[in-house]
Amino acid sequence: MGRWEPNARERLVLAAVELFGEQGYDSTTVAQIAERAGLTKATFFRHFRDKREVLFAGQDVHSRLLADGVAAAPDAATPMAAVAAALDALTASFTPAQREFGPALRAVIAANSELRERAAFKRAGLVEALADALRRRNVPDPAAGLAAEVGVHAFYRAFESWTDPANARPFGELAREALGELHAAVTTLH
Amino acid sequence: MGRWEPNARERLVLAAVELFGEQGYDSTTVAQIAERAGLTKATFFRHFRDKREVLFAGQDVHSRLLADGVAAAPDAATPMAAVAAALDALTASFTPAQREFGPALRAVIAANSELRERAAFKRAGLVEALADALRRRNVPDPAAGLAAEVGVHAFYRAFESWTDPANARPFGELAREALGELHAAVTTLH
Repeated sequence: MGRWEPNARERLVLAAVELFGEQGYDSTTVAQIAERAGLTKATFFRHFRDKREVLFAGQDVHSRLLADGVAAAPDAATPMAAVAAALDALTASFTPAQREFGPALRAVIAANSELRERAAFKRAGLVEALADALRRRNVPDPAAGLAAEVGVHAFYRAFESWTDPANARPFGELAREALGELHAAVTTLH
Repeated sequence: MGRWEPNARERLVLAAVELFGEQGYDSTTVAQIAERAGLTKATFFRHFRDKREVLFAGQDVHSRLLADGVAAAPDAATPMAAVAAALDALTASFTPAQREFGPALRAVIAANSELRERAAFKRAGLVEALADALRRRNVPDPAAGLAAEVGVHAFYRAFESWTDPANARPFGELAREALGELHAAVTTLH
């Protein structure tokens, strides 16, 4: 208790996704998650408010990285170039473990309406973080909001490809490709 | 009980928004909402599963109208023309009462994280309904998803303008204008 627990956060996420998959989200307790991770309930609550938030641990990190990536783009960057820089900034945050448990995480969320709502809220939060960062670069509305939606859309497409067991390509490459496809699709809308 | 209650649905929505605004969402009960509306709890539960769903009553109607609007667009319509037809199809569903209580409804949702999550889920549901309708017209992905996001973005912008007390213009006109602005913004992204 109180001592440093190596990778506690990631161990708790993995344990939660495993248990939710095995016995269902509603039937799983924080005590069981902590036990499966080889940690105490107190350690769990130092990292997460409740069992639901374990599944959305990435939201703050991703929001911050997206905003930092936009802020660090060159002054002359177009809105889409700034969004591409934001997606690049995410790359470093993804671990091999996340890649492996991606399909199980998606299945757990898809099976529970409360989790699907929370997932939609996460996505909306990422769009808002990215749009705010673009507004700070003086991208006006509605272009800032639109570019943010395109960027987050690319993020989710890339994340889904990246966590597909049949796919071995790096996240950054998939994100660039997804953004390029969306950008090309824009011109087909008329 | 069991008899026809004129406008029961709208009366319940209005009563709920009033009470949530006056005394908070958490402190308000279904019994209080029914009483304020001059109806019984049994009538409430014939229309809504719980007090939360009262605030998202429009989701099914809007999803259906968006999909029907896309389906009814001429065969030769571009994706954006089909989206414009979908927004037109929504117009008839909005009542003067909705226009009036729009700001109060937004304030109630903004004050409660559970309601903000539910609202994000509603928006995601509308995007999905519109994207599915576009796919049925053989609009490929990611263009279908992107056009749906642009369309729902225009819907929310238009709805916010329409429920602004300073604004007296009709919804259909505001929706067309919002869609035009978003479409123009697309070309500024690069």
